[in-house]
Amino acid sequence: MLKDGERIDQLFRENMSIIQSKSVFSFSVDALLLAEFTKLRRNRETIVDLCSGNGIIPLLLSAKTPHHIKGVELQPTLVDMANRSIQLNNKAHQIEMIQDNINHVNDYFSHSTCDVITVNPPYFTADQPLKEKSAHSIARHEIHTNLEAVVTSSKYLIKNKGRLYMVHRAERSAEVIHALMKHNFRIKTLQYVYNSPESTEALFVLVEAIFNSKVYVKVMPNFFIYDSIGNYSKEMMKVYYG
Amino acid sequence: MLKDGERIDQLFRENMSIIQSKSVFSFSVDALLLAEFTKLRRNRETIVDLCSGNGIIPLLLSAKTPHHIKGVELQPTLVDMANRSIQLNNKAHQIEMIQDNINHVNDYFSHSTCDVITVNPPYFTADQPLKEKSAHSIARHEIHTNLEAVVTSSKYLIKNKGRLYMVHRAERSAEVIHALMKHNFRIKTLQYVYNSPESTEALFVLVEAIFNSKVYVKVMPNFFIYDSIGNYSKEMMKVYYG
Repeated sequence: MLKDGERIDQLFRENMSIIQSKSVFSFSVDALLLAEFTKLRRNRETIVDLCSGNGIIPLLLSAKTPHHIKGVELQPTLVDMANRSIQLNNKAHQIEMIQDNINHVNDYFSHSTCDVITVNPPYFTADQPLKEKSAHSIARHEIHTNLEAVVTSSKYLIKNKGRLYMVHRAERSAEVIHALMKHNFRIKTLQYVYNSPESTEALFVLVEAIFNSKVYVKVMPNFFIYDSIGNYSKEMMKVYYG
Repeated sequence: MLKDGERIDQLFRENMSIIQSKSVFSFSVDALLLAEFTKLRRNRETIVDLCSGNGIIPLLLSAKTPHHIKGVELQPTLVDMANRSIQLNNKAHQIEMIQDNINHVNDYFSHSTCDVITVNPPYFTADQPLKEKSAHSIARHEIHTNLEAVVTSSKYLIKNKGRLYMVHRAERSAEVIHALMKHNFRIKTLQYVYNSPESTEALFVLVEAIFNSKVYVKVMPNFFIYDSIGNYSKEMMKVYYG
């Protein structure tokens, strides 16, 4: 089941396994935080994850909802890893991967059909230093997609009042808010993630946005990954182990 | 020197006095935080404060810089209070109040002439419940001006790479970021202010924006007004007493 350089990591709380690869793609804490931050409802909802990578978000969400989840990922290597992880966890009935650029979502979905969109997009602009156009770099840099394309595809997919959940680097949080609002998303919730209570700057931002809404934003208390001593914080332990 | 209903409050750290009025206008902690957050440089800078109210921001800034500061305030009652506070602190050589709507800044300033703009705008939209059109309500509600007008006037005034410092309610922080970015400001620094470490939601946001810049945003650690016991936090004590 494993290919060269791959390993299997455990998702403890979800009691699931995921195929990772250091050189190709391995999820990090931001993916766990996005899945934790995403609010799913009991009633049937159409859920789409964009820029799915090795399928970490669909897998984590599948432990939170019985409903169907579609993941869209450009890179065949990553879709292949995701599909094998889906098999490994017996989730083939619930999760379906689509291999294509998110610019082409209209080939697979009618517009205004999604209740929930999750996305952990490439964090770095194409300008930011890049060693080589490896799978790893494509997942992390805005080479084949960018924030504007993510928001445009999301806008095509999302229903009126649908929810979008995104994690991004805190240093790009203003751009994220601006891009979303320009396309008629309103920001409902923001949460900044810091390495520890001593950090002088936030690492990530978690964003909940509602399409065609008039909500005001609620800025939640910070999330700290580590405590002051350097151990995982209580809230991070909860994300890992429940 | 005092009119009906007015009192004199002390600005301890600055060793200054300010005329306040419960029914007309009295500054609150947000003004102190904005002045603290504003970065002024040693070299000569043109500094303008919009929506000046009773002149609290120009007064506080005059303790941080020897340079000239102009305040713009619509309401004659408040300009009158500000002017008496300016006299009281012997700051007439440094602070000048202009009584007009900020929409008319072009009657008083050439465009692209300000290095620094500070603004503590009305917090509530005209839609939000309002008892009467008192001086107090006008200062707090978007009746005669709004966020878009504040940003448009700031854009007229500000030099290339000039700095804008704004405090606003956290629940409108996404709108603030969107309005600024739409007009070519980039967000350099964000700091969210919470009542205490136990608060479930931020109260205010402090924003530093640079005109025509390409900076990424730095999201600073939270500012807490009170500690967990209910006393002023150390950082708040510093703002009050130095």
